[in-house]
Amino acid sequence: MNLLLINGPNLNLLGKREPEVYGHETLADIEASLVQHAHAKGASLQCFQSNAEHALIDCVHEHMNKVDGVVINPGAYTHTSIALRDAFLGTKIPFIEVHLSNIHARETFRHTSYLSDIANGLIVGLGTLGYALAIDALIASQTK
Amino acid sequence: MNLLLINGPNLNLLGKREPEVYGHETLADIEASLVQHAHAKGASLQCFQSNAEHALIDCVHEHMNKVDGVVINPGAYTHTSIALRDAFLGTKIPFIEVHLSNIHARETFRHTSYLSDIANGLIVGLGTLGYALAIDALIASQTK
Amino acid sequence: MNLLLINGPNLNLLGKREPEVYGHETLADIEASLVQHAHAKGASLQCFQSNAEHALIDCVHEHMNKVDGVVINPGAYTHTSIALRDAFLGTKIPFIEVHLSNIHARETFRHTSYLSDIANGLIVGLGTLGYALAIDALIASQTK
Amino acid sequence: MNLLLINGPNLNLLGKREPEVYGHETLADIEASLVQHAHAKGASLQCFQSNAEHALIDCVHEHMNKVDGVVINPGAYTHTSIALRDAFLGTKIPFIEVHLSNIHARETFRHTSYLSDIANGLIVGLGTLGYALAIDALIASQTK
Amino acid sequence: MNLLLINGPNLNLLGKREPEVYGHETLADIEASLVQHAHAKGASLQCFQSNAEHALIDCVHEHMNKVDGVVINPGAYTHTSIALRDAFLGTKIPFIEVHLSNIHARETFRHTSYLSDIANGLIVGLGTLGYALAIDALIASQTK
Amino acid sequence: MNLLLINGPNLNLLGKREPEVYGHETLADIEASLVQHAHAKGASLQCFQSNAEHALIDCVHEHMNKVDGVVINPGAYTHTSIALRDAFLGTKIPFIEVHLSNIHARETFRHTSYLSDIANGLIVGLGTLGYALAIDALIASQTK
Amino acid sequence: MNLLLINGPNLNLLGKREPEVYGHETLADIEASLVQHAHAKGASLQCFQSNAEHALIDCVHEHMNKVDGVVINPGAYTHTSIALRDAFLGTKIPFIEVHLSNIHARETFRHTSYLSDIANGLIVGLGTLGYALAIDALIASQTK
Amino acid sequence: MNLLLINGPNLNLLGKREPEVYGHETLADIEASLVQHAHAKGASLQCFQSNAEHALIDCVHEHMNKVDGVVINPGAYTHTSIALRDAFLGTKIPFIEVHLSNIHARETFRHTSYLSDIANGLIVGLGTLGYALAIDALIASQTK
Amino acid sequence: MNLLLINGPNLNLLGKREPEVYGHETLADIEASLVQHAHAKGASLQCFQSNAEHALIDCVHEHMNKVDGVVINPGAYTHTSIALRDAFLGTKIPFIEVHLSNIHARETFRHTSYLSDIANGLIVGLGTLGYALAIDALIASQTK
Amino acid sequence: MNLLLINGPNLNLLGKREPEVYGHETLADIEASLVQHAHAKGASLQCFQSNAEHALIDCVHEHMNKVDGVVINPGAYTHTSIALRDAFLGTKIPFIEVHLSNIHARETFRHTSYLSDIANGLIVGLGTLGYALAIDALIASQTK
Amino acid sequence: MNLLLINGPNLNLLGKREPEVYGHETLADIEASLVQHAHAKGASLQCFQSNAEHALIDCVHEHMNKVDGVVINPGAYTHTSIALRDAFLGTKIPFIEVHLSNIHARETFRHTSYLSDIANGLIVGLGTLGYALAIDALIASQTK
Amino acid sequence: MNLLLINGPNLNLLGKREPEVYGHETLADIEASLVQHAHAKGASLQCFQSNAEHALIDCVHEHMNKVDGVVINPGAYTHTSIALRDAFLGTKIPFIEVHLSNIHARETFRHTSYLSDIANGLIVGLGTLGYALAIDALIASQTK
Repeated sequence: MNLLLINGPNLNLLGKREPEVYGHETLADIEASLVQHAHAKGASLQCFQSNAEHALIDCVHEHMNKVDGVVINPGAYTHTSIALRDAFLGTKIPFIEVHLSNIHARETFRHTSYLSDIANGLIVGLGTLGYALAIDALIASQTK
Repeated sequence: MNLLLINGPNLNLLGKREPEVYGHETLADIEASLVQHAHAKGASLQCFQSNAEHALIDCVHEHMNKVDGVVINPGAYTHTSIALRDAFLGTKIPFIEVHLSNIHARETFRHTSYLSDIANGLIVGLGTLGYALAIDALIASQTK
Repeated sequence: MNLLLINGPNLNLLGKREPEVYGHETLADIEASLVQHAHAKGASLQCFQSNAEHALIDCVHEHMNKVDGVVINPGAYTHTSIALRDAFLGTKIPFIEVHLSNIHARETFRHTSYLSDIANGLIVGLGTLGYALAIDALIASQTK
Repeated sequence: MNLLLINGPNLNLLGKREPEVYGHETLADIEASLVQHAHAKGASLQCFQSNAEHALIDCVHEHMNKVDGVVINPGAYTHTSIALRDAFLGTKIPFIEVHLSNIHARETFRHTSYLSDIANGLIVGLGTLGYALAIDALIASQTK
Repeated sequence: MNLLLINGPNLNLLGKREPEVYGHETLADIEASLVQHAHAKGASLQCFQSNAEHALIDCVHEHMNKVDGVVINPGAYTHTSIALRDAFLGTKIPFIEVHLSNIHARETFRHTSYLSDIANGLIVGLGTLGYALAIDALIASQTK
Repeated sequence: MNLLLINGPNLNLLGKREPEVYGHETLADIEASLVQHAHAKGASLQCFQSNAEHALIDCVHEHMNKVDGVVINPGAYTHTSIALRDAFLGTKIPFIEVHLSNIHARETFRHTSYLSDIANGLIVGLGTLGYALAIDALIASQTK
Repeated sequence: MNLLLINGPNLNLLGKREPEVYGHETLADIEASLVQHAHAKGASLQCFQSNAEHALIDCVHEHMNKVDGVVINPGAYTHTSIALRDAFLGTKIPFIEVHLSNIHARETFRHTSYLSDIANGLIVGLGTLGYALAIDALIASQTK
Repeated sequence: MNLLLINGPNLNLLGKREPEVYGHETLADIEASLVQHAHAKGASLQCFQSNAEHALIDCVHEHMNKVDGVVINPGAYTHTSIALRDAFLGTKIPFIEVHLSNIHARETFRHTSYLSDIANGLIVGLGTLGYALAIDALIASQTK
Repeated sequence: MNLLLINGPNLNLLGKREPEVYGHETLADIEASLVQHAHAKGASLQCFQSNAEHALIDCVHEHMNKVDGVVINPGAYTHTSIALRDAFLGTKIPFIEVHLSNIHARETFRHTSYLSDIANGLIVGLGTLGYALAIDALIASQTK
Repeated sequence: MNLLLINGPNLNLLGKREPEVYGHETLADIEASLVQHAHAKGASLQCFQSNAEHALIDCVHEHMNKVDGVVINPGAYTHTSIALRDAFLGTKIPFIEVHLSNIHARETFRHTSYLSDIANGLIVGLGTLGYALAIDALIASQTK
Repeated sequence: MNLLLINGPNLNLLGKREPEVYGHETLADIEASLVQHAHAKGASLQCFQSNAEHALIDCVHEHMNKVDGVVINPGAYTHTSIALRDAFLGTKIPFIEVHLSNIHARETFRHTSYLSDIANGLIVGLGTLGYALAIDALIASQTK
Repeated sequence: MNLLLINGPNLNLLGKREPEVYGHETLADIEASLVQHAHAKGASLQCFQSNAEHALIDCVHEHMNKVDGVVINPGAYTHTSIALRDAFLGTKIPFIEVHLSNIHARETFRHTSYLSDIANGLIVGLGTLGYALAIDALIASQTK
């Protein structure tokens, strides 16, 4: 099973910004750890991050018919990007939406998502463990 | 680690209603499987279900200082019960909110929750796997 | 044809509260009269009333596959109980929603219902005659 | 007892449009059947249909003090005609509002009515049986 | 100066409906009195009433370039007819909007008007005197 | 008949600000002319203007049981002063609300009034003629 | 291919009102030109205009199964007529909605339409050319 | 004078949860103290608490015509229970609504109440003293 | 303990306006009675009333560090004065907000308050007894 | 006449995604066909597509004073990009907005556009024919 | 160049209330410093403060045609005073609106202003430096 | 002190678009002048402009810990970019938001900002002088 991890804007700051909130692991650390986690369960995992909305869209397009599922933390584009939604609608790649912090405990504009209703699942507020659980869920869905 | 699984209204119908949506497992089947899952990771799991809002509140009260975490699928009370919210606010038991189906792909009144912003985490749309992942997350949070 | 009449919160006060609005018949009087009405048309009618949301839900669950239709006056739970809605969604029992008074001529929060859009029909403002008409409608639907 | 049945816009299409939804009976068939239904209960019934808002208003005006009650299916004017409301407010003729389909299961703009709060009663979603039940209710109200 | 008085739906009931609110004068009485009032001030007054939205629109069209001003009580069409607004926008006839009762003390949906912002003036709640004052205002505007 | 004319904030600028909109007459000119207008019809007219909300309230209080009616242009306090509303509610002096310009053709916040629903009448957009018409209406109401 | 052009309220004023906005062509001129345009492409075109909502509805009813498509400029009824919507829903005649001016650059209440979501297409702001393009589109759809 | 004190959901946690906010007194302590307070003023006081909405409703029903007034802290049901409102509407028992903390300084959904507009009075934010003041107010109202 | 009673706009009418609602006591009577009430409990009470928003603000400023608490009935300024809120925020004087009538049973615009969320407490609908209870509460808060 | 066709995000998937909805033609096919269509009418057409908001903005800037009109299908940026709106406001290039599918029959957030009110015209729901009609309209506007 | 500095309600507390937020300078200190600042740039500066809405309005009126610009911190009247807006609209004095603290980081009702859209400029959140910058801006605008 | 000036989308058009509104200076002219302005006050100033949201985000990231403050005119991204907000939240660089024109006098969607509540200050409507004042304010804040 081939999986893809996509991280959106500002997630390149992980481990650098607000470590008391998000921990000291950098995104590279997290990605490395998740690649291992996926491999241990017999799946491959590619990783991508960008601050650019179009780069996320292009990334989804390029992996159409090439990956079996996506784990995506769309960052702030969760709340503003209909174009990213359309990329998933158009390519029909299954995906799970992950948020590190509890978006429901933050500003009101973070309570809505253009992706959730078309996602296969949603994991919120569990920190970087959420990525691993999403990988587990995609693998589990395959074996059903 | 002592955990508690709480299922709210109508979840006693699992395996009986709409099996094409929710599968053929009954709630008893699911609970048995999750007890095993928890034990395999060194945790105990108690299970409770009720259609009564007050019974869920009483259940939370009774486990104050007795369990280390709750996995709760509040069913329809997610969207209507401030009293259940207050039970968690008052007892301060950590909990993860789980929904089997994707509530964001259903009626608008299912898009809001009186629990999410005070939950430790939220797992949506992953079927009964969501319960297992929530157990994993509570156990993981203990070992940090 | 087996029918079930369910009355929700505060309807046990019928004949006791505001007789100038709701008449002098008690709920027991009304139920007796409706049982006769149904029998005269060849149907059986069971009756249930509770002030408890969960008791109404349990009652719906218990009659799944046992009755052919429900006449329900959900009282105030009309406007607040998604859990009761889910009981009907889960059991798929046909039902007609009845209100004695004209809810559209009362407070704004009585103008919306969590049941109407999934009901087979709706009868409002015709007093206890509404119950009899709903029974007639359920019987008529069977003979189509 | 003299009754009047008023049908609003597009109801002249009954039996012609969407028979799978509304049945094969034409409006003339339905009217004939209801005239018989009323007569069998000792009441007379006149019938009127128009696609014109003003024709409905004129019809209400002309029957002031001439009929004892109106059964009206205002069609789309339910949701847009304050002028029709005013016709009933001005003439004070008792009336029951009937909708063939379940307007609460359709578009949001069909969920509100300019007539319901001043109607004697409301019957929704029971097909053409709703007309007969409304006639029954008007007759019953007379005998109280 | 040639003036036109237009009365909208249900105003033909004046003197017949709710005389305790609207007085015992019929519309014919009122029109006769206003014709005299206008003549006394050197103006002619034609009168028109209809329950039909299109008849009001047609009436406005037909008097384009033929009258110097309109006094209109649009009745319920005040709140629902954009088409009537467009008739005034298209013909550019100056007009004063009059309401007999205080629409701001009635239902919320009577608090908005599709005509007020393009009217030359607005007179509300002064009964049939409002018509006479509106005529006075149109005549006065001419003499400026 | 004793009448009182009250003008609210910024109306002291009349004749000074935007003469192309409001004309060249000062408030003193207008008041003088209206006093004559009232006298000619057998009524007395006192005049008051203030930019202070409390001064308008005090003025209403002081004239309780001393005047038979008030013509008031509350200026901007129309839209913001519940206290002025309460002064009229408390003293029960009949009043007519007048606006020189068409408030419905201006900013949205000028479309609502805390006074209109308790006023005896409302005259909008007819310039200073509106004051005279309001005086006429109060005098006419006395003679009924 | 048989086509029908329907123009709603106030469009009979074309060429008469606001020529600087809508041009000097009368509706008769435009209709004549469009009949030629359709004929040149092998289609027939009938034309209808009315200021009456019911006349538009009746017109749609009468052409059920007689025309292959409708080009309609519903004028102000775009924003207020659910009954016209129901006429199209009931007769299932394909139609394209046309507006001469840019309704999105006008008052907010012109930004919504009761027809757009059930139309085959929508052309806005292109003046009378929009009618010709709509005819082209209906003809093109036939040849697919 | 016979009085009844009703406490709603989660108030059984008083003295156990958040003592820094709500103090160290348990509900039993508070009830004992209030019984004394009432007796000292010549009134009897019964006390009831439940986490169940229906139990509160049943309690109100059972005391109809048996108590002269109720002091109620409805907890979270303040904001969600129309059924409890109906219990008071139906039994017509006078009552005063009390909240220990300042609900206006908490989450927005705590700012509305289904009881306040039909309560005899409302006391908010004064801690358990509020109960005593409400008892004083009920006794005072009797002696008027 | 030094206390201050502030009454806002129109409360000078007490005993003069609507005695059937507010009683026959004048504000002077009430103030005298409350001064005695406070003295009997060992506190001093000063009294102030004004119809002017700024006078209330000035009064709050002048008593900063001079009184231990304020009982305020802000009248209509409750709903409109952010400046009065700022006076309390700036001076940090503890205060209890009192309303004589039940503001929740009146117009919607009386249901919100710019003061409640920063008040120490709120007493509504208990008539002039509310003032005395507020004094009791301020005294009680001191002795904690 | 020099024209420019701009396609926004995800339109590069045309012919690849959901061919049952959008047809089998790729964007390259469509562009080629439109270039021919334009040439046949004596106009040149350049084509541009990007998933990047800024690339669309840059493209508009670069063609300022170089093209006579733009046909743009902004895809999802229709609903989210004020920056694209500002590019058209700043460069003042005339443009027609085109949508392939009927955006009014899709999710609510697709019903609003940041471009429509400043567009020269709008064509919706006519598939790729819409592009050709927009080109026709731009050419026609030149010849006026 | 003659300038005027106006401070609204509660700003007389500067230096006295919340010095950790607003600093220790009194309003007199600030005014003195700003007078010097203006003089150093060749402008005169008069200063005015009042807690009374009408006094601010009167102040604006009195300086019509006497000052070249106003720097105003309207305090809470920013959000509630349409009358103050009208004073600026009527006198047409250029003005810059200044807020010491960041009103967008405070309560929602502080996010709107009745002055901003008619102001020449707006400076927010820069403390008392904002006054000096506003003076600089007025002076700079003169020299253009 | 090291400062950074960031200009967002379409600001590269300065001096080219609408010079009657924005003046004839190009962005390069303005930047050069501001670099001098900063140097004269002992600060360095770097300048950046992009039409790409991600480029603005990247720019903020790259200057974390390298500049002491940012002056940003986010253009249209003010109203749509939560990602840009997150860049400032993550890097914690102090910044002042500047808008050349008065955004409160433009379309409603320009009245809200995703940056204002986390900005150190806000300067609106003062043209390019706003940039210089913002630089002054950042320098002044350093010297406190």
